[in-house]
Amino acid sequence: MGPAGRAPSFASLAVGDEVVRGEVADTNGARLARWASESGLRPGPRATVGDDERDIARALRFLLRLAEVVAVIGGLGPTPDDVTREGVARALGLPLAERPELRRALARLYSRRGMELTSAQLRQASLPLGAVPIENRVGTAPGFWLQAPPRAEGGPGRYVIVLPGPPRELAPMEADVRALFRAWFPEVRPPVERRLQVAGYGESLIAERVARALGAGAAAPGLRLAAEYAAAGVTFATYLRAGAVEVRISGPPEAEAAVAQAAQAAEAALAPWVFSHDEPGLAPAIAKAASARRVKVAVAESCTAGLVGAALASVPGASDWFRGGVLAYVDDAKRDLLGVPADVLRSFGAVSAEAAEAMAQGASRALGADLAVSVTCFAGPAGGTPQDPVGTVYLGWADGARTGHVRRVYHGPRDAVRERAAWEALVVLWARLHGLDPEGSAHAARRAAGPS
Amino acid sequence: MGPAGRAPSFASLAVGDEVVRGEVADTNGARLARWASESGLRPGPRATVGDDERDIARALRFLLRLAEVVAVIGGLGPTPDDVTREGVARALGLPLAERPELRRALARLYSRRGMELTSAQLRQASLPLGAVPIENRVGTAPGFWLQAPPRAEGGPGRYVIVLPGPPRELAPMEADVRALFRAWFPEVRPPVERRLQVAGYGESLIAERVARALGAGAAAPGLRLAAEYAAAGVTFATYLRAGAVEVRISGPPEAEAAVAQAAQAAEAALAPWVFSHDEPGLAPAIAKAASARRVKVAVAESCTAGLVGAALASVPGASDWFRGGVLAYVDDAKRDLLGVPADVLRSFGAVSAEAAEAMAQGASRALGADLAVSVTCFAGPAGGTPQDPVGTVYLGWADGARTGHVRRVYHGPRDAVRERAAWEALVVLWARLHGLDPEGSAHAARRAAGPS
Repeated sequence: MGPAGRAPSFASLAVGDEVVRGEVADTNGARLARWASESGLRPGPRATVGDDERDIARALRFLLRLAEVVAVIGGLGPTPDDVTREGVARALGLPLAERPELRRALARLYSRRGMELTSAQLRQASLPLGAVPIENRVGTAPGFWLQAPPRAEGGPGRYVIVLPGPPRELAPMEADVRALFRAWFPEVRPPVERRLQVAGYGESLIAERVARALGAGAAAPGLRLAAEYAAAGVTFATYLRAGAVEVRISGPPEAEAAVAQAAQAAEAALAPWVFSHDEPGLAPAIAKAASARRVKVAVAESCTAGLVGAALASVPGASDWFRGGVLAYVDDAKRDLLGVPADVLRSFGAVSAEAAEAMAQGASRALGADLAVSVTCFAGPAGGTPQDPVGTVYLGWADGARTGHVRRVYHGPRDAVRERAAWEALVVLWARLHGLDPEGSAHAARRAAGPS
Repeated sequence: MGPAGRAPSFASLAVGDEVVRGEVADTNGARLARWASESGLRPGPRATVGDDERDIARALRFLLRLAEVVAVIGGLGPTPDDVTREGVARALGLPLAERPELRRALARLYSRRGMELTSAQLRQASLPLGAVPIENRVGTAPGFWLQAPPRAEGGPGRYVIVLPGPPRELAPMEADVRALFRAWFPEVRPPVERRLQVAGYGESLIAERVARALGAGAAAPGLRLAAEYAAAGVTFATYLRAGAVEVRISGPPEAEAAVAQAAQAAEAALAPWVFSHDEPGLAPAIAKAASARRVKVAVAESCTAGLVGAALASVPGASDWFRGGVLAYVDDAKRDLLGVPADVLRSFGAVSAEAAEAMAQGASRALGADLAVSVTCFAGPAGGTPQDPVGTVYLGWADGARTGHVRRVYHGPRDAVRERAAWEALVVLWARLHGLDPEGSAHAARRAAGPS
C-alpha cells in the first residue's frame, strides 16, 4: 500500500501475439491508465508481450518492481495460446487451482449456448491460488485479482489484477475495477476534475478563452494562471473528443473549491456553447434537446452518405425525435427525393450553399421534420472548383420557415473530410435546437481574419 | 547478430508521460513491430514509460535482455521533460557528447525559422558516444542508432535505435529504419505471406475450411497440416478485419512455393467467397464489381441509419455506381418514402422479412437502382419480440425482379448490433453482385445446426 498522502503507482501489461505484432492496437492500456488516474493512482510503465508464459512472468516481475498495482490484460480465453493464468501464477510462484464455483458457472453458460464444456474451456475455471474472481458479464473467462505473496518481486502486498483483452468484455468491468482501487487504497482521494464539452469553436480558440478566463494572458507554453488557481494547483487541458472539444480543469483533492470556481469561470467564457459537462459527443445532447422541445429531426446527406444519420441513431430511443433522412449521393436523387430544383443544380452545382439549403428543406418536407440539416461537399480525392476546392463542405439547415447554411473547408484525406463534415452537421443541429447561429462566435472571428 | 536461420528478436520502448497517462494512444509500437516483422525480425515485448531518465534506463536494460534490437521512441525534443537521450546513455553506460555536425544543422534550421538556438534546443545535438544520427526530415531532433558496448545488458552487439515520437516525424523514417534492419542482418530474409479476404462465412468456419484444405482434420488447437506444408513451416491464421475475415498463410523465406500452393488450396476451398487478396473491406470489392457490371446500387436503412451508405461512399468515385439511399428510421418514412405497404407494417411489424424485402424494393424504385439492400433490426436496448429478440436483424435485397432476405441474430450492445448488421449488408450486396445466395454455404450449415 502506498504511504499515506502519496498516490500508489500503477502499471499494466498487455498480453497477445496480435498486439505484439502490431495487428491490433492496444487501447486497453490507455483505458486502464485512465481508470487508475481518475481513482487517484499514478499511472506508470506499461508493457506488452506475446502469448508466452515465460515472457508474461518476466514482464510481470519487472513491473512489480516498479508499481504497487499491476494490471495484466488479455490471454484469458480457452485456446492453447491463452496462457496469462499460467504466466501470472509463475511470476508469483503460486499454483493454479480449479475453482468449483467457476466450473459450475462455465457449465451453465456453455449449456445455455448449447455447447459442450471441453477440457480446453475448463481451463478458464482455474486461477492462481488465493485469487478473487471478477465476473465477466459478456465473455466466458472471468478476470481475477490477488495480492502478491511474501517473497514476490517488488515485495509483498502489491496488487495484481488480471482482466480479459476484448474491449467489449473489459469495458463492463470498469465499476468493479474502480471499486477495487477504492477498497485497496481507502486513504487515497482522487484528484478533482471538472469537464466541459464544447461545440462550435476550434480547440485552440477554446484553450485561449479558458486561459483568459483563468487569468492567463494566452494559452502559450508555460502559461501562468491567476494566483488563486496557481497556488491551489489548478491546471486545465483541452482534448478533441467525439467530434467536439473537452476541457478538463483539475487539481489535487484538496483544491475542490478552486477547481469548481475555475470551471464556472471557464463555462461562463464559453457560454452558450457548453453542451454537456461529462457526457462527450453531440448526439446525446441533440437527443435531449430534441426530446425536450418535441422537435422532429431529419438529415439529407450527400458526401457523408449516412455518417450524420448513423451518429444520431446511435442514441437509444432515437425514434422519439429522429425521423430518418435521404442519402442523395447523385444529383438525380437530390432532385427526385429532395426536390432540389434542377436549375439550382445547373447554376450553382450540387456542392453549393443553394443546393445545401434546398436539400435541408427537402428533407424536412419529405420526412415531416421540424428541423433538418444537410451536407454536401467535395470529399476528394478528385473534384472541386477553384472557388470551392476539395475539402469544401456546405451544410444547410431548415428550421420551420427559416433556412441557412455554413461553409467550411477541411484538409486531409477523403474520410477525414467526411468525418469532420458529419461532426459539423451535429454542431449545426445542436445550435439550431438552441436558437444559436451555427457559425458560432469563434467561427465568425476566424472568417473575419481571412479565408479558412 | 542472430544466429543464421533464426529471426532476430525485436522489442520497443515508448517514452512519454502523455502516453503513460493514456491521453495519447501509442500507435508507434505497432508501427515499428510491423516494419520489423516485414523485414524478417520477430517482434517481441513492448514497454511504455514516462519521461523519467531512470525509468527509461531501467526499461531499456530489461528489453535488451529479451531482444537483439530495441527501438526507443519519443522524448527526443528540446524541452526539459525530453530525457530519452540521457536515459539511453545511462542504460548503456555511455557519456553524451555534442556532435558538431548536428549543432551546425540545428543552427541552420533554427535560423531558417527565424528562431534563436537556445541551450535547451542544443541538447538535441548531443548523442550517446558512438551513436549514428538518423535524419529527421520534419522535426528538429534527429534519431540515432548504436550498438550496445561490451558489458551492456543482454551482451554486446545488440542494437538500439532511437526515434522521435510524433508520428509525422517517425513515418518519414520508415525507409531508413528498414535499411538499417537489412544492413544489420543481411542474411535475414522476410517471411513469405499470402492473404485472402473472405466474406459470407464466420471466422471459425473459415479456419476450419482452411485447415481441412491444408490437410488437417479440423482447426483444433495443436492442428497438424499436411506433411508438405508442415515440413516447409507453413502456418495460417485468421483475423477479423474491416467487417470480413482475413486469412494469412505464411512461412519462412524459403517456403515461397509451399505458401503459394497452400494459398491456392485455401482459396479453392473458400471459393467463391474470396473477394480480394490484399485489400481488406468489402466496400472496395463492391465498388469494383458494381463498376465492372454497370450495376447501380442503393440502400434502405432503418436501425443502421446510414452506416451502410457511409461505408459504400468511403470508396473514391462511388458516384459511378452508388446512387444513395433512404434512412427510414420511423414507420411513416418506410411507408411514405419506400412504399412499404401499411398492412405489411401492421401485420408483420417493421422488423420482419416482409418489411425488409419491401424496403429494398422501395429503395431500388426510389433511387433508380439495379440492386438495393435494406436493414431493419431491433438494435436495443429496448424492443424485440419473443420470436425476434433484441439483436435480430432482417436484411432484404432487391435485384431486378428478384427479392430475398436473410435473418441474423447478434449479441452485444446497440452499436455492436448496428455495426454487425451494416457489415452483413455489405456481404449481401457483394453476394448479389456475384449471383450468390447471400446466406453463404457456411451460414446455411450453421442454420441447419440450430438457431444462432
